[in-house]
Order: sequence, then structure tokens, then C-alpha cells
Amino acid sequence: MTSLRRIKLTIEYDGTHFSGWQRQENASSIQESIEKAIQAFTGESATLFVAGRTDAGVHAQGQVAHVDIPERFDARTIQRAINAHVRPHPIAIIDVRETHSEFHARFDAKRRHYLYKIINRPAPLTFEKNLAWHVPYPLDIKAMQEGGNHLVGRHDFTTFRTVHCQAKCPIRTLDTLHITQQDTAIHVRLEAQSFLHHQVRNIVGTLTLVGSGKWPPQHVKEALEARDRTAGGPTAPADGLYFMHVAY
Amino acid sequence: MTSLRRIKLTIEYDGTHFSGWQRQENASSIQESIEKAIQAFTGESATLFVAGRTDAGVHAQGQVAHVDIPERFDARTIQRAINAHVRPHPIAIIDVRETHSEFHARFDAKRRHYLYKIINRPAPLTFEKNLAWHVPYPLDIKAMQEGGNHLVGRHDFTTFRTVHCQAKCPIRTLDTLHITQQDTAIHVRLEAQSFLHHQVRNIVGTLTLVGSGKWPPQHVKEALEARDRTAGGPTAPADGLYFMHVAY
Repeated sequence: MTSLRRIKLTIEYDGTHFSGWQRQENASSIQESIEKAIQAFTGESATLFVAGRTDAGVHAQGQVAHVDIPERFDARTIQRAINAHVRPHPIAIIDVRETHSEFHARFDAKRRHYLYKIINRPAPLTFEKNLAWHVPYPLDIKAMQEGGNHLVGRHDFTTFRTVHCQAKCPIRTLDTLHITQQDTAIHVRLEAQSFLHHQVRNIVGTLTLVGSGKWPPQHVKEALEARDRTAGGPTAPADGLYFMHVAY
Repeated sequence: MTSLRRIKLTIEYDGTHFSGWQRQENASSIQESIEKAIQAFTGESATLFVAGRTDAGVHAQGQVAHVDIPERFDARTIQRAINAHVRPHPIAIIDVRETHSEFHARFDAKRRHYLYKIINRPAPLTFEKNLAWHVPYPLDIKAMQEGGNHLVGRHDFTTFRTVHCQAKCPIRTLDTLHITQQDTAIHVRLEAQSFLHHQVRNIVGTLTLVGSGKWPPQHVKEALEARDRTAGGPTAPADGLYFMHVAY
């Protein structure tokens, strides 16, 4: 029997043309692409466990997954081999570490960091097509930040999760929500130990109503307190969402 | 006869799948794509004059061109109409201004600003594929800057222009060359009134020899003084080059 060692992978991917992280029938997933690449050089099947299962079209710059790989492969060899076999998919293993056999990428995560990118200008997107949300009307990020401040802390986020969310409990603690702007790029950064399904995209969609002047910032607090998805704003598109970092 | 007005366009494009700026037979150019878009809404043929003719695969974030368009179209209408008709090409008109009838995008340019992007990491590129030069071995940007400093000022740049360059005189004044790094992204910014053909790419290819330790920084000075293309380093790929800005 092959002796295995647990490995922690840090992964970057352009999610545009994938059905999402998770392996599924008749669809191209990031998980399957990497698992196949591992099998191609180890000769054995592998199963990845991920920190944040991303939806179709969502990207990652610092996704983390763990996997058990035969001991004879060292970290550097694993990184090179996966990157070689995963081509031409837009997936890159940017770091590989040997870790202890109990490490779990999902359950041991202490804090997850998401970035949502908006390009705010009348002209259509070129370089950022599929990689940001194009909002052609002006947004006031000061008002958006004021609205977003109502969401920081421990709350029932029912208003901001999809009705299909399978989490048992809608209560989460949002540690930070920071909005910055550089030229036409607006970045919304959020940190929490964990997020509900569509929570970031529903928050950003709602804050955009504030940024465009349709909602006063205070309305975000009322929407939160309603604990009702229909009281929230629209779901921002997957294009702008990036899974950035996990702290363990 | 239609009364015309001179218009200054500021243009962004992803040059990856174009044969370059300039219109040519049996090839897809940025110039032709925009000229066709103008003709589609004005009903009249249009000719663009550009500040910097970029090669195949080279990008722009602030290219400038002028064109004469029937007076009945205002700046905002022109921007919207070109952007609508130029789809699905990765080209966007990001600004349109009415200008005086003597303005010339190429001959009136006082200073051009180029950016060259390198991603310096072992892992292959995902988001930046075709949009940066992937250098997998470590680069020392302090050494690169030291080498680059020898090129600032008025010099005979024969070593750094392609032998096919059609400029009569190889003397240019390089006003600035600044290298910065943020994480794995290395940015080389250069400013001059005008550049020779392949000058930026040949400078960056040469500085990369310095950054990797193959050349001492002083060797750049010797290469410059040789006034011989074969004394310089390789031509960096088009992927990393961006035409950023023109001052008039």
C-alpha cells in the first residue's frame, strides 16, 4: 500500500469557463481538472478538500485545498507536475506545503477573505471582461461604505443569503467590509470565518443600490433586520468575485 | 458636402488577437475595427491617425487617435456608438473630446508613456496570460534599475532598436525609467517624446539579463555605447507591453 502525505495547495484560477469548484457530472470543474492532473503523475486517484467552494464564474487568487499524495513526491515536484498537467486550463498552483495528517482545508479555516471587483465607467470592459462587474452609472463609495458598516459584526444574514443556501444557521460574524477606489476600479473586501451561499454577491448587489443613490445607507440596516431575502438588493454577478485568502 | 469636426479618441485595447494597430490586408487590426465601427454609424468612411502604432500582441490603456467625423454627432454619442459597434472586439473608447482642426495625435505628442508588465513567479499565468511576460526565475529589480539608469537621457539607441526600424535617426531622449515590484508583479515604466521600433521590448529584455544575474548593471552602459543591436539582450515578448498615456 502506498504511503501518503497530506499536502496543502494554494490555488489561483480564472473561473470564467468553469461550472464552479465542485466536481459534477457533464460539467467542467476546477476540482476535477486538478484531481485529474494529480492522477496523471501519481498514477493514483486523489480527492481534494477545499476551503471555499466557489460557484460558476467565480475566481480565486488564494484558494486553499488539501489532498493526500504518495510520499515519494516532494512539494516542489508536486507543484511543477500539477501545473504541467493542468494546462491549458487557467489554473495555477502557486504554493505547495507539506502539512500534518489532521489538517483540514475547510474545517480548520479561521478566516476567509473575499474581494469583489467593480469597474465603474461608461465604456465597456476589455482586459477585465468576465473578471469584474461592469457598472456604467456613477457609484458613491462613501455612501456604500456607510451602508456596509451596518453589516459588520454578528448578525442573522437571512436577507443576504440565497434561499437555496444549505447552511443550518443564518448567523455569521462579518469581521471587516472595506471599500476602496482607484480610478475606475472599486474593490470591496470582506473577511469572516465563514460566509453563507451568495452572501458576498448579495451584499455587493445591495450596496450598489446605495452607491447609485436608489437607497439611503440606513436602508441596509433595515434590510438586514427584515431577515428576508426579498428585502435585500440584487445578486451581483459572479464575474467580480475572488476568493483571496484563508488564515488557519 | 458633410461638415466635419476633428475628434480626439482615448482608446483601451487587449492586443492579444490583433495583428497590431495598423490596418493591413488579410489581418485583423485595431485601426480597421474602429474605422469600421465609425463608418457603421456615420455612413461615411473614416481614417484614424494614432499617437503610437503598436505591434501585434501589444496592448493599450490610453492610446490616442484623431479622426474627422460629421459635425452632427456630439462627443458622447460618438463614444457610445463606437463602443456599441466595435463589439465583440476587446476595444473600448474611454474618452472622446472635440478638438481643433489642426490637432494631430502623432505629431503633436510631447511625451509618450509605456508600461511593461512582468509576472515573476514559478507558477504559470492564469488571469495575466497574454497580458504579461511570465519570467519563472528570480529577478533582482534593484540591479535592473541600476542597469536601466544608464539609459536615461539623450543617447544613440541603435543597440535597442530592431534592425528593421525605419526611423532616420537612432537618437532619442529617454526621460524616465522606473521599476517597481508588488508581490510577483514587476512594472517597468518608461517615458520619452518618442520611441524607436522595439525600443521598450529590447530594453526590458536586456534588463532581465541584469535581473537574473547574467549581466552586471554596468554592462548595459557598454551595450548602449556599442551602438550595435547584437550587443543588446533579447526582445521581450509583446504580451507585457502597454501603451499607457500621451501628453500633448
